[in-house]
Amino acid sequence: MVSEKMAQLVAGSSIIRAMFQDGKIMAEKYGKENVYDFSLGNPSIVPPPSVKAAIVDIAENEPEMELHGYMSNEGYDDVRQTIAEYTNKTHGTNLSAKNIIMTVGAAGGLNVALKSLLNPGEEVVVVAPYFGEYDNYISNFDGVKVVISPDYERFSINFEELESKITPKTKFMIINSPNNPTGAVYSEDDIKKLADILNKKQAEYNTEIFLFSDEPYREIAFKGVKVPYITNYYKNAIVGYSYSKSLSLPGERIGYLVVPSELDDFEDTIVAMSVATRIMGFVNAPSLMQKVVARCIGQTSDLKVYEENKDILYNALREYGYECVEPGGTFYMFPKCPIPDDKEFCAKAKDFRLVIVPGSGFSCPGYFRIAFCVDKSTVLNSLDSFKKLIDFYK
Amino acid sequence: MVSEKMAQLVAGSSIIRAMFQDGKIMAEKYGKENVYDFSLGNPSIVPPPSVKAAIVDIAENEPEMELHGYMSNEGYDDVRQTIAEYTNKTHGTNLSAKNIIMTVGAAGGLNVALKSLLNPGEEVVVVAPYFGEYDNYISNFDGVKVVISPDYERFSINFEELESKITPKTKFMIINSPNNPTGAVYSEDDIKKLADILNKKQAEYNTEIFLFSDEPYREIAFKGVKVPYITNYYKNAIVGYSYSKSLSLPGERIGYLVVPSELDDFEDTIVAMSVATRIMGFVNAPSLMQKVVARCIGQTSDLKVYEENKDILYNALREYGYECVEPGGTFYMFPKCPIPDDKEFCAKAKDFRLVIVPGSGFSCPGYFRIAFCVDKSTVLNSLDSFKKLIDFYK
Repeated sequence: MVSEKMAQLVAGSSIIRAMFQDGKIMAEKYGKENVYDFSLGNPSIVPPPSVKAAIVDIAENEPEMELHGYMSNEGYDDVRQTIAEYTNKTHGTNLSAKNIIMTVGAAGGLNVALKSLLNPGEEVVVVAPYFGEYDNYISNFDGVKVVISPDYERFSINFEELESKITPKTKFMIINSPNNPTGAVYSEDDIKKLADILNKKQAEYNTEIFLFSDEPYREIAFKGVKVPYITNYYKNAIVGYSYSKSLSLPGERIGYLVVPSELDDFEDTIVAMSVATRIMGFVNAPSLMQKVVARCIGQTSDLKVYEENKDILYNALREYGYECVEPGGTFYMFPKCPIPDDKEFCAKAKDFRLVIVPGSGFSCPGYFRIAFCVDKSTVLNSLDSFKKLIDFYK
Repeated sequence: MVSEKMAQLVAGSSIIRAMFQDGKIMAEKYGKENVYDFSLGNPSIVPPPSVKAAIVDIAENEPEMELHGYMSNEGYDDVRQTIAEYTNKTHGTNLSAKNIIMTVGAAGGLNVALKSLLNPGEEVVVVAPYFGEYDNYISNFDGVKVVISPDYERFSINFEELESKITPKTKFMIINSPNNPTGAVYSEDDIKKLADILNKKQAEYNTEIFLFSDEPYREIAFKGVKVPYITNYYKNAIVGYSYSKSLSLPGERIGYLVVPSELDDFEDTIVAMSVATRIMGFVNAPSLMQKVVARCIGQTSDLKVYEENKDILYNALREYGYECVEPGGTFYMFPKCPIPDDKEFCAKAKDFRLVIVPGSGFSCPGYFRIAFCVDKSTVLNSLDSFKKLIDFYK
């Protein structure tokens, strides 16, 4: 009775959520403090105090009819203008309100973009390892997924393979830097190479290839590294942003799309995205939260704990003998398993009270993901278990 | 470059929103107070004071990590339990948290239900006149729409036609009582007849037909009329609810689905809906607003103004010579145009500063919709224009 497509999607449902459920069961059995749950990308730090202040002030003082009422499907004009101006100031772009569509998180934004642009059977390029939900989003619109195999050296992009896999049917490419699950940050050089390849292929096939940059981790970049802003390097680029991680608001479902005026066929695209927002059932991004994020523009949670956790964990894991590319950002790390079977390895990890996610869930078997958005004490207390786990295989 | 399907959807985009845009242009030209804009179903009354109090208290006192963090995709357990218990008390149902899925409004809920249950090519029955967005929602999942023509006497259901149009491919039927655009409320007798037909056809074809009751207007029923609760009459019923109208929170995108345990294949369906919520990009209903609606359970805005507006408008329109079925609820009225061409009639209405929506937008040409969710003064001031409009055709 459930639709056939949904039945398949349920069967292949999120390995991350499954591990998270396992973690909850283990926490009940052994006590929360005795389980080191690194399964879920749920921020571990509170929003900045300005978020609470903004919610209270806006609720108490803004006219309720406007605050909680319908606005244009693409969001409040003043909120979109604030975001456009902040982006211009920060990244040297040339945006105004008309280039911003408020969305129900980055997931909502990516679905709106795919709905607006992708025809069934057209190809969407993703770079392994990648966030497993992309598979589902592409499936929502009957797109054909094309996977670029991992660059194991840096977890950047395997450019040669990319060039060979772009076809006249390539309509969309999704990148995610800083990256879930690897923590990799693409350099300016990477982005330039990528833009060159896409431009060349667009010209060769006389097509448009939209580069969607999924950026919920933009502000979590370590050592002050600058994350290049994609629209400055490639014309047909769309940015999907979310406040889930930067303001620790994942449950509130608030983000936006940046659609530069330089995009081919901009006017039609922006109208399509506005209509898509409505007809997919989002209608608009939650209204109060739109006002809150505008009020808190440029602020973030106190993100430095993630870099501290990264340092502790990365150094310890290397010392114990794990192979791992050092994350440049996010709160993820993606070490190599000491045995080929990542699922077996993550199952064994539970014996040491470690909840980690097999790389298979990110199209990269033989690796595992650690989501270190946890208390520093959890990181410290887990180290012994990580040591015992690799020693078990020595 | 925009996807072919989206290009078509944009071309056929909401006639309601188009009229709303016209109304805004007229308001700029003539002054807001000189334009009688009845185009949009945006509540005209503030939320009850408890909403503001709940937002402030929850923001100030609930632990922020839980309040703004991820929860299960189907929503907070305590919020779902509160809604289940309230529904049991009010409607004699037998629900618990597991029967409730929090959604991004009723639009989000209906899309989640269709995604979960409908296969491409399966039929979805709708009853004209109906909310035009249903067309888009059905199209999202490549369903085949089957329209039951209007019952012009009462704007109930044309039962004979319904019986003749159900086929082995009928998977879904959408009803909406109190109804947008007619204001009709289906009686208990109507619901029993409907359930009989669906049960007979399910048995005849050995199929499941899901009856989706779209109920954002449940609390806006006039003269204390009781709106029957659909799950008490039919086993394969799903209720889609929204707080957009009852608490005047349309911009916040908060509602829920009720999926009774008696539903065929309940366990699979509820899992599918949870996964659908995630993969369509909603992920979950906005978290703070989940807590707010639970805190305000059973409360509503001061809805009596809608009945007052209805009385004024209905009595005046009848006096002027309009034919109209008296609304039993909502803030809509659906009179017959004095000429066959409803689009021409609504264009002419603008000469009298009236913004009303052609019935064609609801698959019922020859009629027009008045959304009287406006100040009482706007209703009173508009009466002369409605008189002049019909007199123009006499």
